[in-house]
Amino acid sequence: MAEFSIDRFVDSYAARTARMTASEVRALFAVASRPEVISLAGGMPFVQALPSADVLAVAAEVLRDEHAVALQYGGGQGEVHLRERLAMLMAEEGVVGDPEDIIVTTGAQQALDLVGKIFIDPGDLIAVEAPAYVGALTAFGAYQPRYLPIDIDQDGMIVERLEHALLRGDRPKFVYTVPNFGNPAGVTMSYARRQQLVALCREASVPIVEDNPYGLLRFEGAAEPCLRSLDPANVIYLGTVSKTFSPGVRVGWALGEQSVIQRLVLAKEAADLCSSNLNMAITERWFSDEARWRGALSDLVSLYRSRRDVMLEALEEHMPAGASWTSPAGGFYVWLTLPPWLNTKSLLAAAVERRVAYVPGTAFYPDGRGANMLRLAFCFPPEDRIREGVARLGALLQEEEQLFRSLGG
Amino acid sequence: MAEFSIDRFVDSYAARTARMTASEVRALFAVASRPEVISLAGGMPFVQALPSADVLAVAAEVLRDEHAVALQYGGGQGEVHLRERLAMLMAEEGVVGDPEDIIVTTGAQQALDLVGKIFIDPGDLIAVEAPAYVGALTAFGAYQPRYLPIDIDQDGMIVERLEHALLRGDRPKFVYTVPNFGNPAGVTMSYARRQQLVALCREASVPIVEDNPYGLLRFEGAAEPCLRSLDPANVIYLGTVSKTFSPGVRVGWALGEQSVIQRLVLAKEAADLCSSNLNMAITERWFSDEARWRGALSDLVSLYRSRRDVMLEALEEHMPAGASWTSPAGGFYVWLTLPPWLNTKSLLAAAVERRVAYVPGTAFYPDGRGANMLRLAFCFPPEDRIREGVARLGALLQEEEQLFRSLGG
Repeated sequence: MAEFSIDRFVDSYAARTARMTASEVRALFAVASRPEVISLAGGMPFVQALPSADVLAVAAEVLRDEHAVALQYGGGQGEVHLRERLAMLMAEEGVVGDPEDIIVTTGAQQALDLVGKIFIDPGDLIAVEAPAYVGALTAFGAYQPRYLPIDIDQDGMIVERLEHALLRGDRPKFVYTVPNFGNPAGVTMSYARRQQLVALCREASVPIVEDNPYGLLRFEGAAEPCLRSLDPANVIYLGTVSKTFSPGVRVGWALGEQSVIQRLVLAKEAADLCSSNLNMAITERWFSDEARWRGALSDLVSLYRSRRDVMLEALEEHMPAGASWTSPAGGFYVWLTLPPWLNTKSLLAAAVERRVAYVPGTAFYPDGRGANMLRLAFCFPPEDRIREGVARLGALLQEEEQLFRSLGG
Repeated sequence: MAEFSIDRFVDSYAARTARMTASEVRALFAVASRPEVISLAGGMPFVQALPSADVLAVAAEVLRDEHAVALQYGGGQGEVHLRERLAMLMAEEGVVGDPEDIIVTTGAQQALDLVGKIFIDPGDLIAVEAPAYVGALTAFGAYQPRYLPIDIDQDGMIVERLEHALLRGDRPKFVYTVPNFGNPAGVTMSYARRQQLVALCREASVPIVEDNPYGLLRFEGAAEPCLRSLDPANVIYLGTVSKTFSPGVRVGWALGEQSVIQRLVLAKEAADLCSSNLNMAITERWFSDEARWRGALSDLVSLYRSRRDVMLEALEEHMPAGASWTSPAGGFYVWLTLPPWLNTKSLLAAAVERRVAYVPGTAFYPDGRGANMLRLAFCFPPEDRIREGVARLGALLQEEEQLFRSLGG
């Protein structure tokens, strides 16, 4: 898909379309989806662990009790009982939100798209943590912003760098961050940094877009307060049930000031009219039974914790000297930094040949950095596959390392 | 919702956001949703007529047999077996389409949004039939086009007018039309006009966006060929299962040249990653049983035909002299033109007070016309409610007419 076929419309496309390019590694991922390849690339939740009989029972209840609503169009803001459940889910993390200030979106990805749509004019500056969630970069990218990448360390976004940018006159439309177990780095923003970020953005009148898909997938330790709870008026908060329940229902949401939500509703109606009533009803019922959803979520968290442990152990065992990686306290991802002479994009073909796949680091930087970095996901493959996958990758990297040294590097 | 609350972000919004305004009649529609009001406004399919036990059985099969896929993320282009079914559905209307040239979208509304996204730069000209589907105007509107409205008559778009515009140098990015039982006018484009439009657009290298949600809801007569079958290379065809099955599953699609589809896939991934695997699987299974879907569709068509008949009879009986209306051979809508001194937007409040609602004509014109026009939908209310609703509206219009005459009009 990297190249397009002969195109009679080539002179008709909008300027933004030139930015929509298929990832160079897309073709490789098609190969990587073959069963013999251990994919540590995709961030797919392990939905196999959901109690399928329970999900079936919920869907059956919906179609038996409310099929005339479930099969019909819905409102642009989303079903109110679902919004009440989503408010309850946010309360789990200390976020207080009125259901009236919530819009249900087609996954949190649509919330990113709609936020981009209502805020970004071509050339506008958007501050993003670097590395950043690639889906946010593509969603915002359609509206032709310039990016202000703010590096992260083990405590999350280095807020001082944002401060320097603001001081030298940069005026980003908003700051985008995944503060809990971020994608791709698996890093969590410290409390001090959260306070610093919220105060800085309030002072500068720069809204924050806080994306929190992984917050409830905590393996250990106590949660830091969400940015939204530190400054409700200046933070647009995005959530999803893709990781706590199922991505297949495409239910995400945004919580924000009423003025923002009203604009997002208009943008949503223009984009796809409404979310699926059937999926909204299934999701609402799923979260109506506390024992059920807490049980399923707790099982998922245990499973991901073990997989994380296995991945970290395997990295310890197999990675060459000079490689370092993050140690996530939740979520799906470990971020690796390799010696600077290694290029993870050009190595991917060799990795896939050895039947292991990852995502090269450059995908997550809007400015071409990340060439010696890569993302590993521990959420989907079983433990023995994680172990074997990391071993295969480690062997490749060790060989590359030896090759480099033998060439006098 | 016509006014927004105090807004700390007011200086941050994109230029396009200024065009996203809540409809002036939105508040009235909230009132109109009360049960005592007969709504002839909304184009909601009568999903109550679907055999709910069958839908339930299909959903249960999906969640029993393929829950690990149904609950997972899917690909941006949509599930291939569903695309095969959609190709089969299009073949019902003579459209030949390769599943590889189809993208599944979140309802056809998302296809409109994505088409706008990949084609429209601010200020670009888009030719639309007038009156046009309001959802297309809002979807395209987000990308800040100028509109070239081409009037319709009982044979659909008056292609000559488009020709004149092209001759005087207008260069629309594409032409948008609903050629079968259009929304809002209920009019079908004649064969001669179809040939004329397709030849003109090919000659001028202007792509056509053919939106066909209602084609399979034909009450009588033979189908005209779809524009796509007359010129596959120059027509992007949009479809949906919202009217033949259920809007609650949010399954629509676009069929186009591979180069266009590849760009739409990238735009879709940026907008919401993927459609719901669960809904795609349910839809695929629904259309896998030919007796089932044909039976349900045929029941729907009979039901809509009777409702159309009842509405046309009631209009004959109750409308004042000087009112005229279309006589749709399928679909959901009748379009009324009233004497020029009547303003359907200002009359709506009085109509809702008399417990009947419609959509004022101005909603469907990008240029403020349509003030003495309105759309009635016969798809949702039962026959006696249609009769009573039209009687209520007729009584109001008769009184307005008498008032006008008594004032010496």
